[in-house]
Amino acid sequence: MAKDMTLMWGSGSPPCWKVLIALEEKNLQGYNSVLLSFEKGEHKSQQVLDINPRGQLPSFKHGDRILNESYGVCSYLESQFKNQGNKLIPECGAEQARMYQRMYEGQTLAQKMADVIYYNWKVPEGERHDSAVKRNREALIAELKIWEEYLKKGPGPYLAGKDFTLADVTVYPSIAYLFRFGLCEKRHPKVAEYYNSLKSRPSIKATWPPTWLESPQGQDLLKDI
Amino acid sequence: MAKDMTLMWGSGSPPCWKVLIALEEKNLQGYNSVLLSFEKGEHKSQQVLDINPRGQLPSFKHGDRILNESYGVCSYLESQFKNQGNKLIPECGAEQARMYQRMYEGQTLAQKMADVIYYNWKVPEGERHDSAVKRNREALIAELKIWEEYLKKGPGPYLAGKDFTLADVTVYPSIAYLFRFGLCEKRHPKVAEYYNSLKSRPSIKATWPPTWLESPQGQDLLKDI
Repeated sequence: MAKDMTLMWGSGSPPCWKVLIALEEKNLQGYNSVLLSFEKGEHKSQQVLDINPRGQLPSFKHGDRILNESYGVCSYLESQFKNQGNKLIPECGAEQARMYQRMYEGQTLAQKMADVIYYNWKVPEGERHDSAVKRNREALIAELKIWEEYLKKGPGPYLAGKDFTLADVTVYPSIAYLFRFGLCEKRHPKVAEYYNSLKSRPSIKATWPPTWLESPQGQDLLKDI
Repeated sequence: MAKDMTLMWGSGSPPCWKVLIALEEKNLQGYNSVLLSFEKGEHKSQQVLDINPRGQLPSFKHGDRILNESYGVCSYLESQFKNQGNKLIPECGAEQARMYQRMYEGQTLAQKMADVIYYNWKVPEGERHDSAVKRNREALIAELKIWEEYLKKGPGPYLAGKDFTLADVTVYPSIAYLFRFGLCEKRHPKVAEYYNSLKSRPSIKATWPPTWLESPQGQDLLKDI
């Protein structure tokens, strides 16, 4: 039980989802879960700003220790609860190297995904250019090819090899987000296989974004990617 | 000695510098150091592409293990050489939490810095807008205020507290880069104090960018920030 922990999070946000998965994997259920709404601007509310000057989610507290960066929370939980739940950093050096590599490459994937999906939201109307949209889409396509290749070469079934690791905790939510936004399974078969194979993992199933469960139909923004 | 390691890097690049510092801190001298030139496009050369599909530096090999993400290399080295050189992850839970938080917040600082410094290089001429330049500069100013506040509140002298940690390894190069590009020491006194206090640390002194030593005069792009 993790009664001395509080997680403020938003549904569907990949960074929030990473933390939710890590908490499940480490058997840290029972924490104080505060689901906030991005639409209502609750990530800018005082309760968030009190521990997070940037007003972003996730925001996390363990006792009086504050961690608002999803990679930070996941790394901290694994380090503090090493012998509890599933081990998320492999002992094997080769698998560990691959884990760290994939985990941080996941940030590049997330960035290229955000550049496409959030373009109209992030870039003011007068500054938008079709050429930028095209370039961002091409960058995402190139990035996805790299991941398709990684998953093809293996060793699999997980991103770092035979074990589910921090690489999967941190990258899976981005991959699920891509498919939620219409990524074509046929055009990215290995990425789709990875996505589908992990849907039923208990930590992922238990934390599937509630708003996605309510309206299972996603968007089609990425259907041509 | 680290003869089974190869690091391909570029002078002045904060991500490369992080890895150089981590190698020093872990007493991993003697690695095969391959200094490449961004200006000559050597980061896109075949020797880099052979282990890094994105053609970026740093690119790092330990035996046949490949790690190209600077945060990944630093985390891997600390994990694999736990009892060698300086310990870069504190045992103390509170300090460890602060370390992970600052370490990953460092990516936000680096991103906001890059949005300003690389604007003309990253954004094609026809897509540039004064309004974006202004917004990026304001975002960097707001970000720097957060760090000034952190360093004021302490506990210091390092980013996570009494020990030099992965937070310093990963954030210091960005802070040095800001001053290299003209950030005003008077306007950011705590950040400047932190910057100056670490200049003489052996790992940092030994890895100071060779191109900066050759031409000590930086640029003034950030003088009004």
